[in-house]
Amino acid sequence: MSTPQPTREDKFSFGLWTVGWPARDPFGDTTRPPLDPVESVHRLAELGAYGVTFHDDDLVPFGTDGAAREQHIKRFRAALEETGLVVPMLTTNLFTHPVFKEGALTANDRDVRRFAMRKVMRNMDLAAELGARTYVLWGGREGAEIDTAKDLRAALDRYREVLDTLAQYSADRGHGLRFALEPKPNEPRGDIFLPTIGHALAFISTLEHAEMVGVNPEVGHEQMSNLNFTHGIAQALWQGKLFHIDLNGQHGPKFDQDLVFGHGDLLSAFATVDLLENGGPDGGPAYDGPRHFDYKPLRTEDIDGVWTSAAANMRTYLLLRERAAAFRADPEVVEALAAARVPELATPTLAAGETYDDLLADRSAFEDFDAEAAGRRGAGVERIAQLAVEHLLGAR
Amino acid sequence: MSTPQPTREDKFSFGLWTVGWPARDPFGDTTRPPLDPVESVHRLAELGAYGVTFHDDDLVPFGTDGAAREQHIKRFRAALEETGLVVPMLTTNLFTHPVFKEGALTANDRDVRRFAMRKVMRNMDLAAELGARTYVLWGGREGAEIDTAKDLRAALDRYREVLDTLAQYSADRGHGLRFALEPKPNEPRGDIFLPTIGHALAFISTLEHAEMVGVNPEVGHEQMSNLNFTHGIAQALWQGKLFHIDLNGQHGPKFDQDLVFGHGDLLSAFATVDLLENGGPDGGPAYDGPRHFDYKPLRTEDIDGVWTSAAANMRTYLLLRERAAAFRADPEVVEALAAARVPELATPTLAAGETYDDLLADRSAFEDFDAEAAGRRGAGVERIAQLAVEHLLGAR
Amino acid sequence: MSTPQPTREDKFSFGLWTVGWPARDPFGDTTRPPLDPVESVHRLAELGAYGVTFHDDDLVPFGTDGAAREQHIKRFRAALEETGLVVPMLTTNLFTHPVFKEGALTANDRDVRRFAMRKVMRNMDLAAELGARTYVLWGGREGAEIDTAKDLRAALDRYREVLDTLAQYSADRGHGLRFALEPKPNEPRGDIFLPTIGHALAFISTLEHAEMVGVNPEVGHEQMSNLNFTHGIAQALWQGKLFHIDLNGQHGPKFDQDLVFGHGDLLSAFATVDLLENGGPDGGPAYDGPRHFDYKPLRTEDIDGVWTSAAANMRTYLLLRERAAAFRADPEVVEALAAARVPELATPTLAAGETYDDLLADRSAFEDFDAEAAGRRGAGVERIAQLAVEHLLGAR
Amino acid sequence: MSTPQPTREDKFSFGLWTVGWPARDPFGDTTRPPLDPVESVHRLAELGAYGVTFHDDDLVPFGTDGAAREQHIKRFRAALEETGLVVPMLTTNLFTHPVFKEGALTANDRDVRRFAMRKVMRNMDLAAELGARTYVLWGGREGAEIDTAKDLRAALDRYREVLDTLAQYSADRGHGLRFALEPKPNEPRGDIFLPTIGHALAFISTLEHAEMVGVNPEVGHEQMSNLNFTHGIAQALWQGKLFHIDLNGQHGPKFDQDLVFGHGDLLSAFATVDLLENGGPDGGPAYDGPRHFDYKPLRTEDIDGVWTSAAANMRTYLLLRERAAAFRADPEVVEALAAARVPELATPTLAAGETYDDLLADRSAFEDFDAEAAGRRGAGVERIAQLAVEHLLGAR
Repeated sequence: MSTPQPTREDKFSFGLWTVGWPARDPFGDTTRPPLDPVESVHRLAELGAYGVTFHDDDLVPFGTDGAAREQHIKRFRAALEETGLVVPMLTTNLFTHPVFKEGALTANDRDVRRFAMRKVMRNMDLAAELGARTYVLWGGREGAEIDTAKDLRAALDRYREVLDTLAQYSADRGHGLRFALEPKPNEPRGDIFLPTIGHALAFISTLEHAEMVGVNPEVGHEQMSNLNFTHGIAQALWQGKLFHIDLNGQHGPKFDQDLVFGHGDLLSAFATVDLLENGGPDGGPAYDGPRHFDYKPLRTEDIDGVWTSAAANMRTYLLLRERAAAFRADPEVVEALAAARVPELATPTLAAGETYDDLLADRSAFEDFDAEAAGRRGAGVERIAQLAVEHLLGAR
Repeated sequence: MSTPQPTREDKFSFGLWTVGWPARDPFGDTTRPPLDPVESVHRLAELGAYGVTFHDDDLVPFGTDGAAREQHIKRFRAALEETGLVVPMLTTNLFTHPVFKEGALTANDRDVRRFAMRKVMRNMDLAAELGARTYVLWGGREGAEIDTAKDLRAALDRYREVLDTLAQYSADRGHGLRFALEPKPNEPRGDIFLPTIGHALAFISTLEHAEMVGVNPEVGHEQMSNLNFTHGIAQALWQGKLFHIDLNGQHGPKFDQDLVFGHGDLLSAFATVDLLENGGPDGGPAYDGPRHFDYKPLRTEDIDGVWTSAAANMRTYLLLRERAAAFRADPEVVEALAAARVPELATPTLAAGETYDDLLADRSAFEDFDAEAAGRRGAGVERIAQLAVEHLLGAR
Repeated sequence: MSTPQPTREDKFSFGLWTVGWPARDPFGDTTRPPLDPVESVHRLAELGAYGVTFHDDDLVPFGTDGAAREQHIKRFRAALEETGLVVPMLTTNLFTHPVFKEGALTANDRDVRRFAMRKVMRNMDLAAELGARTYVLWGGREGAEIDTAKDLRAALDRYREVLDTLAQYSADRGHGLRFALEPKPNEPRGDIFLPTIGHALAFISTLEHAEMVGVNPEVGHEQMSNLNFTHGIAQALWQGKLFHIDLNGQHGPKFDQDLVFGHGDLLSAFATVDLLENGGPDGGPAYDGPRHFDYKPLRTEDIDGVWTSAAANMRTYLLLRERAAAFRADPEVVEALAAARVPELATPTLAAGETYDDLLADRSAFEDFDAEAAGRRGAGVERIAQLAVEHLLGAR
Repeated sequence: MSTPQPTREDKFSFGLWTVGWPARDPFGDTTRPPLDPVESVHRLAELGAYGVTFHDDDLVPFGTDGAAREQHIKRFRAALEETGLVVPMLTTNLFTHPVFKEGALTANDRDVRRFAMRKVMRNMDLAAELGARTYVLWGGREGAEIDTAKDLRAALDRYREVLDTLAQYSADRGHGLRFALEPKPNEPRGDIFLPTIGHALAFISTLEHAEMVGVNPEVGHEQMSNLNFTHGIAQALWQGKLFHIDLNGQHGPKFDQDLVFGHGDLLSAFATVDLLENGGPDGGPAYDGPRHFDYKPLRTEDIDGVWTSAAANMRTYLLLRERAAAFRADPEVVEALAAARVPELATPTLAAGETYDDLLADRSAFEDFDAEAAGRRGAGVERIAQLAVEHLLGAR
């Protein structure tokens, strides 16, 4: 059997911090040497990726400024030119340095907030220069451990203030950026603000430039709350807010594992790919942005394992895409979905032009409705479930 | 030491289905006989509650119509008049009957959806008649077990359609109702749509009558996803959407326990009461609606245990309210919060009139900012944490 | 592609309560009519199962005694004879009736404990008559919601007392039974005693007839604690205690879903089947008992869905068995495992005859050991992980 | 109100790695400077602790040997003598250095296993010299991320081999040590072997020197699996295996928070203290070993916050001990427990001398038993629950 090979058209991208993770964890020192961003660009290009992303400090160490900073950027741009890789997204490191320990954009300390804003703005300028279209904000330090030691609503005020300001800045400067908030329920903070896709979308609805702000959901982050990732991105898509996506793997509510995509809940990964690729109104793609892998090669691995795992993300995605396409094309699946009345949900509950008064007057809807008979009808879900599993297993 | 006694001013309310739960669970038959709603009203009034709430079928069994229905309602109204209890909220049972097994307002079967809408509308009329101001919608059957067997986005279309229609209906009829969506992540469905406070708030932002729709968060439902309940309602309050609240207890991600309020995560309950009672801009109440207990007396209990547990909810709330008031009034707490710069978060990051250009020009914000020094400063959180615990324990 | 068909040799068995579940859940009434056990036997036989299991009350309603009970048993035996199905396991319902609400074998009420013991003993006699070899004990009501309202250690005393007595009874009567404790962390009780495989194994080690008692782990029960099921049964196998197994599906820490096997964490199901089928010392089966499905057809389904789902359990198992066999036979997998030194773990840390004094004298083990060099070597795990995923997907 | 002050008699101990944690987490650099172990000893003594514990590398950096190592030890011993602090427990760091990335005592690489064993043995010698009575083994790196990439049963073989050897070594050398295994479900590994108290106890039952090996359960580790910590240690006590205990706080299934004791699930902490202090057969202490705090001062804190948090652990424990004593002494509690038949569980199910044949002959136990009447009796649990909460709140 052949395994599909990734191409640029597949829009696979990786963060520099993924393959470049030196594998330090809360109980252990680094197991791998630092990786030169230029080398990462070359290797990712060879493997079939189309894009690379980074936090400011991934490319230019914290505190580096002026000419040294320019030098780092110049080398990196040269690598992009040599390989043809693009930079679809940039983001800011607002979590590593001790200055952010109590928060960055929502720190109690106003000076820290101002510093954090400036750090973001500087990197937004670079994002625009590099042609990025999406600017991700992961507020890993925006949160608390002790409920009574933080003014929770003031924190949201400040979060809104900074988003409104940054959006205005981007618009005025012609950056061409859209913002994508990345939710996460906890780790490193005990509770992080905007912990799920839902909370982030709700927050966005209050912003001055709401249209410029969407979400960047990560598989594992939602699964850390044991929430259904596919349901989550379905709501984001439905609200027109899936601006970017972070694919990886996780085994339920525990520390953030950042496994290879598909190496966690594989059935859920299948549903996710099916939604992204076949969930559009016409059965085509529902999402056309980067397929961004935000994972960590296991700490047990050396550099060979790093590249093996990078390739694994893409291969798994492509295999799932093939399986999902076959699932949707299978006449038995189409028939089973119809038998289960799945397509009927697209039909509005009120007919075109029907008012609630019409509904109230419709005795067949209530007075004469045979609830017992309707309650006896099977919904046909088990059959679809098994068809999906068998397609996933490559058994049909 | 004296234990505070509940009064009507405390606005404690209970669902008929709480004290009246006959204690059937997924593995066991009922252990208690049905409770006459009229008796519940009298007993709750004696215990100090001010309000009672119910699903349509709690008062009038499913399928009862016409004169028999009126008779049930008449007896109940008489009990309300005798006791002075009010009905602040009503809701619809869209989950018990088999007809709703695949969903109600988002069922694939359009006839089921129409029936469900009619069932809601009929009960909204009753809600208005009884003077209720809040109409809760808990979509316990709106969800799925199998991702690929449901059109997730069409489900949200239908959910929106029905909310828009119901809101219009309420407005046109002058019901004076506001809607409150009650999120829950799962149980009875594998995954329920709008699983958290955040997802519900996000959905509400898309509605035609968004201003009429808020949330009714339940302690245990958020904790089933191991989310921080106090953080969740803080966001709801911040968005002006805490229309109602369900207080109870839960021990983390497992089946929906519906324990007595405070019999789960007690420290979190303390923070919740503190936010509700002392979280307003002036340090007064941030919420003035009913304190509604949505709990289940343990299945092990007889009717005495039912009333013991009903009283326990109110006593615990009042004790927590006392503890929270003492915490906020303690000069050492005030000092510790100031030392931790908690109040500083209310100060905007940009000064009044300051533009982002001003910020960019402020070298003290970035170029000259001493991040190392700022990173060394202690945030003073442990001290506040312990002060809270000691107040909760009644030890200060 | 062909899908494998189950045969008697595959040793698939089902509980009467699985296909016969009338689909009542904590929030909903039954959606399916009762299923005659005789019909279940015939349908399961047709589908390819080899065995059927039951709780006493599944076959003979609670409280039925004497001739009526015999009549139920007689009809059932006839069905067994007609179909050739065997009864490999029996168990007792100690959870449905209100009498067990506070516990059965560990109830505070001694009379309840005595009644429960008698109920078990009566059914053990039937088990022996029907040729069952395993007697399962699931203590669904043995637990508590409130820590301070139960004497936790006395409960374990009583649990041990009853197990010692039952084992003696079985031995004396020549029943030929082995006992299998089924762990579950919670539901229906807030916390159930012996919540995991580990706790049950530990408890067993204290029993008078420890050799007669093992475990019956259920996929979903361990996953409700987010524990790794395959790791759990590996320890049970290692301790010689995997006496029976319950296969199903679950999506992490939430209510007990009892999904079809493979419809939850599919990658974990693959590892489980691989361990059962290929984990023996010679690479053959590590377990030769029944493959017992303890699942519930979704409440949305009618009787067609019931049988579809029953078949799905077996088909998925067989597909996973095929995939696991191919994985183990793949030379690249063998090579990758060797490169990762996986087989080396079977080599004892001390050489044959080596003492700790020898180890202390071996400077190469410590003083001259190059920890830095050893720390740099890659463990080769990512490669194996991806090979497994690709085999599971049928892509190799 | 007065807050109790810790004394040496309270047997409070701390790990050097707790107050000395430099506050590096997976997403952030250290926020606090290293703390000299000698300073920690002095400060802990001043605060009222009686003991201090450590990993080998906490006192002597990895790789330091010979005279330099002796110098570290000498300084430390001097501090112990000056302060009177004891060293009740020692343990080994088998997780920080990259050499242990794939496991230590169960690494695939046999050389790593031998090195790890030697590292443990060297530190056991030191433990004995310092008068420690307990040697803790936390196998943080003994585990896997990928089920199919590890020989799970061979890992248990190796674990047993090393425990058997170490126990023999200790016995032969007259170390006077007992071993305590510390279970944890995950982090830093995806799944750690012996994930819960139960699994560890089960494993211990297979050891050659089982009597020398018990457990060191940690509050947060069990709660990371949402297991009931008090139930867990009750089983350990019941099996005579609670050799040591790690007290801290956690908010359910997420990363290992290591909060101050009581700053997580406070009601559970109350039940734990009640069991330890009042759970013995005579109502006295059930455990007389060290009350060891294994927590981490929040990363937000400076050194003042470190000592505030250290003191907070002890103060909270003492307050809970007071509350638990008052709970047990309250005549209403005694009466409520009796009414709930809690003490009846200590009465064996079979009377003294009663055989199962006697039980079978007792018609009152089964044939004439009125299950309906027994099922109607209330268990009286809600009343006890509320009494406990009110005692905890200091309201009685």
